[in-house]
Amino acid sequence: MAREMIRQGGRSARIQEEVHKAVNTLLKTYDRNELTVPMVAESSGVTPSTIYRRWGDLSQLLADVAVAHMRPVSEPEDRGDMQGDMEAFIQQYAEEMSSKVGRQMLADIIGSGGSSATVKCCGFTYQHLETLQKRAIKRGETGFSVDEAMDVVVAPVIYHILFEDREPTSDYCRKLVARLFQRGDR
Amino acid sequence: MAREMIRQGGRSARIQEEVHKAVNTLLKTYDRNELTVPMVAESSGVTPSTIYRRWGDLSQLLADVAVAHMRPVSEPEDRGDMQGDMEAFIQQYAEEMSSKVGRQMLADIIGSGGSSATVKCCGFTYQHLETLQKRAIKRGETGFSVDEAMDVVVAPVIYHILFEDREPTSDYCRKLVARLFQRGDR
Repeated sequence: MAREMIRQGGRSARIQEEVHKAVNTLLKTYDRNELTVPMVAESSGVTPSTIYRRWGDLSQLLADVAVAHMRPVSEPEDRGDMQGDMEAFIQQYAEEMSSKVGRQMLADIIGSGGSSATVKCCGFTYQHLETLQKRAIKRGETGFSVDEAMDVVVAPVIYHILFEDREPTSDYCRKLVARLFQRGDR
Repeated sequence: MAREMIRQGGRSARIQEEVHKAVNTLLKTYDRNELTVPMVAESSGVTPSTIYRRWGDLSQLLADVAVAHMRPVSEPEDRGDMQGDMEAFIQQYAEEMSSKVGRQMLADIIGSGGSSATVKCCGFTYQHLETLQKRAIKRGETGFSVDEAMDVVVAPVIYHILFEDREPTSDYCRKLVARLFQRGDR
């Protein structure tokens, strides 16, 4: 029985991998408005009903693929102090999220209407900031509130990208970080 | 010629009104995944090609309808001082945007992928805050930076709704407003 379960898990992971790979490949050639579940099914060698059963619909699948890209691939850069770490993080984050690919990922994640993709996406950012916070404490710095950093630094960057349609500049990012660390009521 | 232009404008406005009305009515009965351009065309008495020519596709049309709902219908409430005004504004805004209808509007606006709807939506909020700012100055208060209020108060509320999938509470909103007005570096 346990062996069955493991096999099931392996097949399930394999299906996810093939389907994600098919979506990523198709998006190199086709516009996402042209993409359909049968196209993804054919390209991945999985039946359409498997895709519908597992992801619900195309928008949920696109959101799932986008979230997979959001998963950080490495530890955050260490600049020697928490303000420097935070600046390095937010500048890279702003650059990635405001790129054409980043904007499309955000639109896919938010446009799917489900909450699982958005919560996962936010969770990755939160964990990233927790790493910076733990590193600061280890260095003997005061540290910062991760919730506050989400509000003061991350949220405005995302708002700029989503609603104002312009890239948050390096100066803008630095200003947000300064706002987090220089507050009088800390 | 001028008369022609006016007639044109009148017809164009009428088409927009009928199509928006049809979308709003259909969304009371159908799920938005079931909605199609031909359905909207039939219900509004406008040809599908007119809809495609004017809005591009269904997602752009849904975003346009959502933006129309975002347009403020009245002057912001006057509570007698700028901090009170800002609290009243952001609490109402958070309540509206985190409702089921509000979340769907945000998803439509962002999911359309176009920048015109998002920029308009952000513009309404900006104008609203400008009204509060002018009112503060008129009262003899110091006033505040509208850009800063967008970053410190509006952006976190939207981020919470979009990514953390929970309603920003009254306490949370008040904390954001306090952060805007009690900063040590002002």
